[in-house]
Amino acid sequence: MYRTHTCGELRISDVNKSVTLCGWVQRIRKMGGMTFVDLRDRYGITQLVFNQSADAGLFETANKIGREWVLQAAGTVMARSNANNNIQTGNIELIVDKLTILNNSEVPPFTIEDETDGGDDIRMKYRYLDLRRPIVRRNLELRHRIVMLCRQYLDKQNFIEVETPILIGSTPEGARDFVVPSRMNPNEFYALPQSPQLFKQLLMVAGFDRYFQIAKCFRDEDLRADRQPEFTQIDCEMSFIEQEDILELFEGLIKYLFKEIKGIDFNDQLIRMPWSEAMKYYGSDKPDIRFDMKFSELKDITETGKFTVFDSASYIGGICATGCATYTRKQLDELTDYVKRPQIGAKGMVYVRYEADGTFKSSVDKFYGQDQLKTWAIALNAKPGDLILILSGEKLKTQKALGELRLEMGNRLGLRKKEVFAPLWVIDFPMFEWDEELERFFAMHHPFTSPKPEDIPLLETDPGLVRANAYDMVVNGVELGGGSIRIHDKQLQAKAFDVMGFTPERAESQFGFLMNAFKFGAPPHGGLAFGLDRVVSMFAGLDSIRDCIAFPKNNSGRDVMCDAPAALEPAQLEELFIELKKPGK
Amino acid sequence: MYRTHTCGELRISDVNKSVTLCGWVQRIRKMGGMTFVDLRDRYGITQLVFNQSADAGLFETANKIGREWVLQAAGTVMARSNANNNIQTGNIELIVDKLTILNNSEVPPFTIEDETDGGDDIRMKYRYLDLRRPIVRRNLELRHRIVMLCRQYLDKQNFIEVETPILIGSTPEGARDFVVPSRMNPNEFYALPQSPQLFKQLLMVAGFDRYFQIAKCFRDEDLRADRQPEFTQIDCEMSFIEQEDILELFEGLIKYLFKEIKGIDFNDQLIRMPWSEAMKYYGSDKPDIRFDMKFSELKDITETGKFTVFDSASYIGGICATGCATYTRKQLDELTDYVKRPQIGAKGMVYVRYEADGTFKSSVDKFYGQDQLKTWAIALNAKPGDLILILSGEKLKTQKALGELRLEMGNRLGLRKKEVFAPLWVIDFPMFEWDEELERFFAMHHPFTSPKPEDIPLLETDPGLVRANAYDMVVNGVELGGGSIRIHDKQLQAKAFDVMGFTPERAESQFGFLMNAFKFGAPPHGGLAFGLDRVVSMFAGLDSIRDCIAFPKNNSGRDVMCDAPAALEPAQLEELFIELKKPGK
Repeated sequence: MYRTHTCGELRISDVNKSVTLCGWVQRIRKMGGMTFVDLRDRYGITQLVFNQSADAGLFETANKIGREWVLQAAGTVMARSNANNNIQTGNIELIVDKLTILNNSEVPPFTIEDETDGGDDIRMKYRYLDLRRPIVRRNLELRHRIVMLCRQYLDKQNFIEVETPILIGSTPEGARDFVVPSRMNPNEFYALPQSPQLFKQLLMVAGFDRYFQIAKCFRDEDLRADRQPEFTQIDCEMSFIEQEDILELFEGLIKYLFKEIKGIDFNDQLIRMPWSEAMKYYGSDKPDIRFDMKFSELKDITETGKFTVFDSASYIGGICATGCATYTRKQLDELTDYVKRPQIGAKGMVYVRYEADGTFKSSVDKFYGQDQLKTWAIALNAKPGDLILILSGEKLKTQKALGELRLEMGNRLGLRKKEVFAPLWVIDFPMFEWDEELERFFAMHHPFTSPKPEDIPLLETDPGLVRANAYDMVVNGVELGGGSIRIHDKQLQAKAFDVMGFTPERAESQFGFLMNAFKFGAPPHGGLAFGLDRVVSMFAGLDSIRDCIAFPKNNSGRDVMCDAPAALEPAQLEELFIELKKPGK
Repeated sequence: MYRTHTCGELRISDVNKSVTLCGWVQRIRKMGGMTFVDLRDRYGITQLVFNQSADAGLFETANKIGREWVLQAAGTVMARSNANNNIQTGNIELIVDKLTILNNSEVPPFTIEDETDGGDDIRMKYRYLDLRRPIVRRNLELRHRIVMLCRQYLDKQNFIEVETPILIGSTPEGARDFVVPSRMNPNEFYALPQSPQLFKQLLMVAGFDRYFQIAKCFRDEDLRADRQPEFTQIDCEMSFIEQEDILELFEGLIKYLFKEIKGIDFNDQLIRMPWSEAMKYYGSDKPDIRFDMKFSELKDITETGKFTVFDSASYIGGICATGCATYTRKQLDELTDYVKRPQIGAKGMVYVRYEADGTFKSSVDKFYGQDQLKTWAIALNAKPGDLILILSGEKLKTQKALGELRLEMGNRLGLRKKEVFAPLWVIDFPMFEWDEELERFFAMHHPFTSPKPEDIPLLETDPGLVRANAYDMVVNGVELGGGSIRIHDKQLQAKAFDVMGFTPERAESQFGFLMNAFKFGAPPHGGLAFGLDRVVSMFAGLDSIRDCIAFPKNNSGRDVMCDAPAALEPAQLEELFIELKKPGK
């Protein structure tokens, strides 16, 4: 062992001990005949002291070292006259009597500090230096801790972790697979799993009863800001349970994490909000309920025959922004521009200022009198000084746009505090989504999701209204995970496939091996998966999942540090029986 | 919840309780007006009782069910008159008063029993049924337990688990990579990692100090009986340590596993056997030291000028098989055939029977008299009644062949008992292997392995003699894992590359990003990796790693259950800018 202690553990009680430390040079300060070096390792920082009058040779050596050099320093622990209360080792320093330079370092391309001068690109290229920054390293330490806690919790609940394969078969339904040419089976390909879904259901058929896995998953999608081609799920499945059993067990997990990591107790049962309610009041299937500002529907009290925008709208909804009647024209224009952005797609925004004096000033004064505006204020529970914002149009689209506006107002009003956490379940999702283009129903969750028993008759008459035994865990407007109770009955599965327009042959070709397995005694089962990257990001208070991943890829799916992907040697292609085609041909 | 208890937990103290169980029908026995059903779940088996006189309708239902149907049975726990002491629930039975058939089952293609009638192929095709067999399921439960224990141990020692990427760059050195075409970066490919080696070394450069990962690794090799294209490693790396620190910490891990899983205490420090000694006495770098039967070298006492086979051999070694002087001609011929198999490659075998009456009878009586044979017996510490077996030829090859013969004799004499465990470290491996064909040195471990400091001068003069800071953990003749102290010094690395015939350009192109990272302060570091599949196999007493993997592939790399790999849709190939070439063209 090169050291007796780490750079994070010496305290005032260690004074006069002879110790040896190892680490990297964080900072060097020269003050006359004294040189001070902050030595850093994963555990902390300890100040080294070199005194010219005590050992001139050593002092000279110390003055040659640079930032990020690797040192081994032996000496005696002493109390510091000027304690640094920002760090736990701030009361002591090490008077060095032996110094070994274990390695030197070129000057790093950016400063290794929490507040660095390095941009995103250079930090990713030198990720091994970026990871030296405590602010980044702590995210990875938190990730490790969360995963340990999850495993402990699930192990105690009789779950067993089973590794499912990474080289599997391609399933054309769903997102795009990454594929792997097989050399031993020429012209055939493996696919990398988008999730272990089929395998975990097979494990239920196999009687494993309670399965989990911290599983690597892969999706070849065009990357948005917060997507990675490979990501990690906390993947779980249970047998002989009903929806409520799963909700209880896994809100237990989330509460356990909040308790252990944040010291927050959630004693009450979490809210179970039906999807229809989430859409009605928050315009989102992942409502941020850290703040209220619920929607009110105004259709019934806006009919005049004069304002065609409202009269022609199938849905009119408003929110009340407390104390915002003083918003300027400019602020209101900003909000209008915000909702008209193509991602949100509203055509316009109506506002009503409920002035402090009790009068109303609105963008639709031409069409509505004070009395009528008053009815809106009552519907929205607005008080003098508040601002009412209204969107109108096709129902689902307008609800979603109003939901975005609500979040924007939440941001502006400081109602979305990072240190506040508001977890809930969203339940009773629609079983199917209608695809306008392909003119068929798709499974909203996945094709094995079971309908709510009371909605089974609707499969025949009105599939669009069937609700599923599906559920999402939402915290602060982010979907951390979700799942469903699966269909284990062959007839019911056939009916669901029928609604989705699968012929029996097509169902067989896509899900054959699971359907075969189901012939041999499938138990009632269900499960869910949490996105680990999102869970860690939430606890770390990060805006992007990238900083809780050790070696992330950029938006083009490239690892700029090791320069992957890259061209292969011709001999490798030869062995795999594949040829390249030029793009664009 | 469909059940109040599992099929494994009811005891005599539960008699008279009303309970509900769920599970699969293991066995049905009809005895007049009584029907007995063994209901099985992951936790055990409970006997259900249906009595015609108590409820004729229920009795009729029960008589319709078949093997592997899924049942929910409610009733009252009663004591059994004829207890079954083979199972923990054998003192009670459930008198059923309500039965729900949750699912039926086709007749399974093989019996779901520890002793099944299903062959390998059919069991793999229906792996989800095979996994219902307790003997298979227990291996997966053991795997989970081992992994939990490893994580606990390493977490306590300040290791943090970091997920390294699965989509990385291809490294032409080493085994063959699986590759993944990138759609977003046309004509470029990711590779799947053969191990996280480079990333774990980068994490040391990043100051992570102690890293581990239960890591999926991939190798596109022609599969031998006990190889899988994807396998799992317990992968570890540490900074600021020396070889002995690693050996101590990880023999601690192995001892912890033996204690927790087998109840075996290994109190003493494990043997550290130099590679040269392992070869000299056991003819193997993974010696099975459950039994002695060490080699003796006989060259010095076999010179006669008469027996050219021995006289021309550079090495002559023998072993003594206690009590085997009675071996028949047929048995000796079998042994000769055994060592002459192409995998072993000996040209022949010499035997000497040390008869009970103190005389010698050998296959070389023509060349050696009784006195001379006596000197061999003394060298081998043989006693009357023992059998001496001798091989001769080129040194390393003959040692290895004699090692195989030793293992075969160990098997025949019952000296390789599954319930006995003999772990040890093999250390001081040669740093380089000479490749006759390519006429250059290769790194025996990997190109970043450090030489022993005292052997550094030999790098210039006699690289073949340089010993490395490399070590393997061996148990019962199986290498469970191994690792090395890495080079962190740029000059030393350059010298090592030079010995291996790498030009600086070639080193740069293959290991560029690691070598770049090393410019910024690499700490002294080292690590190792255990093969998880092998570790589990050893503890489970399995002959193949396949049965400790949930969904293994066959020898052609196929998953016969989900029929992967398979052909892709033409559109998928199109998107990836690749074309197929017919094999054999």
